[in-house]
Amino acid sequence: MKYRVGVDIWGGDFAPQEIIKGSILAKKEIEEEIVLIGANEEIKRQIVLNKFKLEEFKIIDAPQKIEMADSPVSAVRKKKDSSIVVGVNLLKEKKIDAFVSCGNTGAVVSASTLILGMIEGIERPGIGIIIPTQKDLSLVIDVGANIGSRPLHLLQYGIMASVYYSLVFNKENPTIGLLNIGEEESKGPESVKYVHKIFSLSSLNFIGYIEAKDIFSGRCNCIICDGFIGNIALKVSESFAEFMRKSLLETVKKDTLGKLGIFLIKRSFKKLKRITDYTEYGGAPLLGVNGIVIIGHGRSNAYAVKNAIKVAIQELNRDLNVQIKRRVNEICQNSRIRQILTS
Amino acid sequence: MKYRVGVDIWGGDFAPQEIIKGSILAKKEIEEEIVLIGANEEIKRQIVLNKFKLEEFKIIDAPQKIEMADSPVSAVRKKKDSSIVVGVNLLKEKKIDAFVSCGNTGAVVSASTLILGMIEGIERPGIGIIIPTQKDLSLVIDVGANIGSRPLHLLQYGIMASVYYSLVFNKENPTIGLLNIGEEESKGPESVKYVHKIFSLSSLNFIGYIEAKDIFSGRCNCIICDGFIGNIALKVSESFAEFMRKSLLETVKKDTLGKLGIFLIKRSFKKLKRITDYTEYGGAPLLGVNGIVIIGHGRSNAYAVKNAIKVAIQELNRDLNVQIKRRVNEICQNSRIRQILTS
Repeated sequence: MKYRVGVDIWGGDFAPQEIIKGSILAKKEIEEEIVLIGANEEIKRQIVLNKFKLEEFKIIDAPQKIEMADSPVSAVRKKKDSSIVVGVNLLKEKKIDAFVSCGNTGAVVSASTLILGMIEGIERPGIGIIIPTQKDLSLVIDVGANIGSRPLHLLQYGIMASVYYSLVFNKENPTIGLLNIGEEESKGPESVKYVHKIFSLSSLNFIGYIEAKDIFSGRCNCIICDGFIGNIALKVSESFAEFMRKSLLETVKKDTLGKLGIFLIKRSFKKLKRITDYTEYGGAPLLGVNGIVIIGHGRSNAYAVKNAIKVAIQELNRDLNVQIKRRVNEICQNSRIRQILTS
Repeated sequence: MKYRVGVDIWGGDFAPQEIIKGSILAKKEIEEEIVLIGANEEIKRQIVLNKFKLEEFKIIDAPQKIEMADSPVSAVRKKKDSSIVVGVNLLKEKKIDAFVSCGNTGAVVSASTLILGMIEGIERPGIGIIIPTQKDLSLVIDVGANIGSRPLHLLQYGIMASVYYSLVFNKENPTIGLLNIGEEESKGPESVKYVHKIFSLSSLNFIGYIEAKDIFSGRCNCIICDGFIGNIALKVSESFAEFMRKSLLETVKKDTLGKLGIFLIKRSFKKLKRITDYTEYGGAPLLGVNGIVIIGHGRSNAYAVKNAIKVAIQELNRDLNVQIKRRVNEICQNSRIRQILTS
């Protein structure tokens, strides 16, 4: 049986053009069915513009649009015919097997949590992001689904991250680090120290604290943090990269040899962008909800959309959520962990 | 009367060489007295190595050293003859007017808080860091002096930042932003929303929330956050910059024209480093303690040390702590703010 991947054609800075283009790119590479969700006429128009066959896709009409600036919870309540709400409902009704959206992140999280509910044993959803590092790719979770996470939530992020990383990157027992402001056990807020204790008791491959300066050095496979921290950490990196790029161009402007130099390394810069821009790595899994949901970055281009669709299929192939459920039950049954959590 | 600036010769990756070199650079530019604090013999040896005159400096012997890995509080308690404890004591006894250290940050914060105490009206110290942005320089506070800050602490950071920024950069009523994960008033943790309310009632030039993606775009002069968040945000930027640099070199290696290109923009890269590396901006003021204390980055070179000494003198010239005391009293007397804080 072919999997059916639903794709929200709205959302993101380059919708619907790049979303449709990305779906076409994916369709050329994969056998699975792609279900485009959004305004019927617009979808057809874009497919024709790209000189692709209409019959290659299934189209589900969803005339409403949740804007990036909409308040998530009320938008999900009010816009029942939006591509996000329609898409998540299709997933709930098993009319699609996975849902990909580059739209309003908060709305995708709210709709998924409300409509799909959580995997048994998981309390809160977490958004994981794949980032490139000086060694392998790493997974950072949570980057904004849940702010003010409790220790149990962080433990569950660790479990979900471990399962996700091992399935998607074929790596047994990936290393797990807890984000903190120092590596010594005595450092950091009490709440983080408490989480350290719980992780140490679990069967996860926990390596202890990881400092922010090591996030991009690749010291561990999975980095666990609260959504407030994770969101800020990632966005600062983007901000800094943009500042560096602009400053370099500004500096080079005043220097003739420099201008020639920039011209010569243009190709390398493009490659660099592909390596360092995590928006290219195919969307962020929304882990913990009862269904396969992938959130694409707002800046997603066709290439990123294609990758997001492929990640969704990978998750389906590996039966991600069944594995998460098994592992979370196993670890949360540990009597010493239960004792700490209930004390 | 000349000011007397005490300089800790230990601490940082390049101590004591770069610390002494930086002090010599400063001495060539300024009239004030520089008091070198550390192992007597080592100080003399370094000065002679640099072919400088011994009599240009005052030397205070402090034979012990607090290592970067030492636990701050216990090191301050046990190592009474360390350069950090001796330096802060000299400041307390008014034998120097300011103290500059690139050593163990936690130890400098602990020693300053314990020995100097706080400015009247301020509850917790905060480390401010000057960062370059696409527009002006910005000040981020706190980057690690105080984790788990309460709303009143954040308000006081805002006040100290405002005073510092206006005195050091000659800018009246600098803009103040509160770091959060969105700009809308409804976003973020309850504690941050509460702080937003207090800031809005104050006479500070508060512009509301600022997102991490705008930290380096220069949207506001002062960025206020808890020390845990601020520390992680800055260290992530460093980590990402290092990753970008290494990835670019790696990419260019495989490309002959690229190699030539890199050679041609070497000069611009150096300039870029000077613009984007905030370690060059002269050390971070430890605000709130009852004395002028500057904490240099662990990677400080001679140039950064010289700048840190000059920042200390600037703070002295402008009577920073007197201004902070005045302003904090003024704002914290506001009856509506007091009402919220005590409710």
